[in-house]
Amino acid sequence: MATEGFRPLDEKYLVEYIKATPALYLKLGEKLDDLQIKEVGDGNLNFVYIVVSSKGSVVIKQALPYIRGMGESWPMTKERAYFEALALKENGQLCPAHVPEVYHFDRNMSVIGMRYLEPPHIILRKGLIAGIEYPLLAEHMSEYMARTLFFTSLLYLSTTEHKRSVAEFCGNVELCRLTEQVVFSDPYRESEYNRWTSPYLDPDAKAVREDDALKLEVAELKSMFCERAQALIHGDLHTGSVMVTRDSTQIIDPEFAFYGPMGFDIGAFLGNLILAFFAQDGQANEANDRKLYKEWILRTTEETWNLFKQKFIAVWDEHKDGHGDAYLPSIYNKPELQHLAQERYMINLFHDALGFGAAKMIRRIVGVAHVEDFESIKDARKRSDCERRALKFAKLLLKKRRQFQSITEVVSAVRQLHGQMVE
Amino acid sequence: MATEGFRPLDEKYLVEYIKATPALYLKLGEKLDDLQIKEVGDGNLNFVYIVVSSKGSVVIKQALPYIRGMGESWPMTKERAYFEALALKENGQLCPAHVPEVYHFDRNMSVIGMRYLEPPHIILRKGLIAGIEYPLLAEHMSEYMARTLFFTSLLYLSTTEHKRSVAEFCGNVELCRLTEQVVFSDPYRESEYNRWTSPYLDPDAKAVREDDALKLEVAELKSMFCERAQALIHGDLHTGSVMVTRDSTQIIDPEFAFYGPMGFDIGAFLGNLILAFFAQDGQANEANDRKLYKEWILRTTEETWNLFKQKFIAVWDEHKDGHGDAYLPSIYNKPELQHLAQERYMINLFHDALGFGAAKMIRRIVGVAHVEDFESIKDARKRSDCERRALKFAKLLLKKRRQFQSITEVVSAVRQLHGQMVE
Ligand SMILES: Nc1ncnc2c1ncn2[C@@H]1O[C@H](COP(=O)(O)OP(=O)(O)O)[C@@H](O)[C@H]1O
Ligand SMILES: Nc1ncnc2c1ncn2[C@@H]1O[C@H](COP(=O)(O)OP(=O)(O)O)[C@@H](O)[C@H]1O
Ligand SMILES: [Mg+2]
Ligand SMILES: [Mg+2]
Ligand SMILES: [Mg+2]
Ligand SMILES: [Mg+2]
Ligand SMILES: [Mg+2]
Repeated sequence: MATEGFRPLDEKYLVEYIKATPALYLKLGEKLDDLQIKEVGDGNLNFVYIVVSSKGSVVIKQALPYIRGMGESWPMTKERAYFEALALKENGQLCPAHVPEVYHFDRNMSVIGMRYLEPPHIILRKGLIAGIEYPLLAEHMSEYMARTLFFTSLLYLSTTEHKRSVAEFCGNVELCRLTEQVVFSDPYRESEYNRWTSPYLDPDAKAVREDDALKLEVAELKSMFCERAQALIHGDLHTGSVMVTRDSTQIIDPEFAFYGPMGFDIGAFLGNLILAFFAQDGQANEANDRKLYKEWILRTTEETWNLFKQKFIAVWDEHKDGHGDAYLPSIYNKPELQHLAQERYMINLFHDALGFGAAKMIRRIVGVAHVEDFESIKDARKRSDCERRALKFAKLLLKKRRQFQSITEVVSAVRQLHGQMVE
Repeated sequence: MATEGFRPLDEKYLVEYIKATPALYLKLGEKLDDLQIKEVGDGNLNFVYIVVSSKGSVVIKQALPYIRGMGESWPMTKERAYFEALALKENGQLCPAHVPEVYHFDRNMSVIGMRYLEPPHIILRKGLIAGIEYPLLAEHMSEYMARTLFFTSLLYLSTTEHKRSVAEFCGNVELCRLTEQVVFSDPYRESEYNRWTSPYLDPDAKAVREDDALKLEVAELKSMFCERAQALIHGDLHTGSVMVTRDSTQIIDPEFAFYGPMGFDIGAFLGNLILAFFAQDGQANEANDRKLYKEWILRTTEETWNLFKQKFIAVWDEHKDGHGDAYLPSIYNKPELQHLAQERYMINLFHDALGFGAAKMIRRIVGVAHVEDFESIKDARKRSDCERRALKFAKLLLKKRRQFQSITEVVSAVRQLHGQMVE
């Protein structure tokens, strides 16, 4: 089945394909004679075509059986497109305001047709590098995470529904393995794929590989990632998987989706905001010292968690008498008890998020895939200074995460460490 | 498919069925004219036939689409036999000395044919009630648990193998739901199924239903049970699922098997030993005060955990350079680090086991299914005294489990509480 009817798209075949696919043809206003096609896959894994006619538009994403950024040398099942489509649809139902609509999915071709997020939508990471404020970002991201995570957890689902979905997404194991390797393993050992800003960070990378306390923490996080089917998570929720305008926030690219720990998504987003913070000193110039912008990032970090917590508890309260199997109303129906249960749940989730967030930061500095926030800093010494601060903070966060009781304390720790290291 | 070709067995049809099934026919020495058939299902759920000819023997277990002990009023998928057969085969491969061989499985009929554990094998629980010592019990049970749990966890399996099995056993969801209800839910709320030694334990049962601290702990354990696919667990490993002689220990009845937290199995066994301990005062008589036997139970409890830990670490050491995805040798290959990682793993597992063990004790005193250890104490007041002590200990264990650093401390706490409450 796997390659039955599969064929990599090119511009010519893409037009034929659209012609033969009513759902796509219609979205282009049945007008293909003035098509503009642009391949924009700036991501690491797949091919993305923006297709615009005078009457409409569509984005076509295709997975090939390898990782684009690594060439055919790193094979990777193209079935990932199936799980991406599944997750896009599920998340789209739970949070339509923040997920692009799926128009079409073709499993044999590993092709997804979805809404074109038209300009001025840009990838959030690019906005953060450019120093653009998004006043609704925390509101939107917290809404997205609260809804997609709550409604796919046992707080809302019955065990029967939950185990059915868990089993289905076990099929996305190759993508889970990729995360295991690049997030939880490679940064902590010698690996041909690792890189860092050398020679400046040579001792720092070595220190990561020799830090036993860190490795013990990472082992626990990895086990949680592999074993704990808490909710349907996006699995790759960094700032490169979010497209934004001032008013709109859209979450794309959930090809790593599976039932895993909620903290992995929350941590990915918060951790990438903190990376963006530490990169700002490298973006600063005479025209803009980025001081205010750094404050905005920290405020957004804080608000994202606080709003997430608030919204998550709100949907929980709203559905506490529903059919979710975790906290049965017949047992937990007292307001004080419900409140205590929620506080416990949220503090555990908070610590998970900090742990995963820190692990995601570390791997972007000494692992295979780096982030444009740092890569765009051309001066290597300057870049390494920014990266060293981020790395130091991430190590602290990973080891001491259980000592933080609120996001405000985390943000204070960022400020403090940054202040000390920059002087 | 579910009922295609399904028919409940009776003695007459059983003979026909055996005749038509070479694997069974052969095990009876191809001699059916002198068959002795006895239905012995003293368990709660299924029908079990012992079939003996002058040339051989076999046990035939059939699941009907309801819970035997509750009559047809409590429907339950007969597909449980499929998961029982799967688990028996898997565990049989991992630990053949302690699992009866499966001769035959018929999915449509929900029939398992397996080795007859001939006399003097009896159910361990009955041996504990009779005051019989089993000098190899701790050795055998720790061996069984160490091997079945280790080799189905990510300490040994690759993520690919693990997720494939996890997905398969997600199908056993109805049995998981049953556990969720009777272990983690019903004891903590009013339920038509609950019972206890009334009126003596009325206030104790009420106190359980009103204990918020207890309910918070139970919620965390329930979440772990539902979400954490740590290993293929037996799922019902109480002393009624073990058949013993002085020299032999056989684990039967894994119909609740699925990928769950290891601590659930370990706790089930330890918790049921502690129940047996607290029941001894009700078994004592002039001829035997059971003093020495109580000490043997506590020693066995202690040895079971200590040997389990030792054996589990030994197989881990043996396979630390294998393909298990949890602790890669390239990261954890230093003896001190490996040791630290193992100690962390084991202390977490220990606390999980204590929590689950305590929950399993509680449900046997105020929930739907009681244990013969207590039920066999005819004098209700005497019984309730024993049960009250066990319940009090279980509540303490559930709430304070993280304060115990060793099984010796747990056993001391049993002794101390027993001493205080008996005088
Ligand atoms: N629906 C969309 N609308 C507009 N641009 C998109 C859309 N989906 C993807 N893109 C663009 O394509 C890039 C790669 O897409 P992405 O889904 O992240 O692929 P990958 O899985 O390879 O990372 C994004 O960074 C974005 O610029
Ligand atoms: N292989 C066997 N050999 C001998 N007796 C058995 C065997 N399997 C089950 N039994 C007897 O049947 C009883 C019920 O079996 P069990 O598998 O526990 O069924 P249930 O699922 O209904 O609890 C056991 O308590 C034991 O007495
Ligand atoms: Mg992407
Ligand atoms: Mg992607
Ligand atoms: Mg509920
Ligand atoms: Mg049984
Ligand atoms: Mg059974």
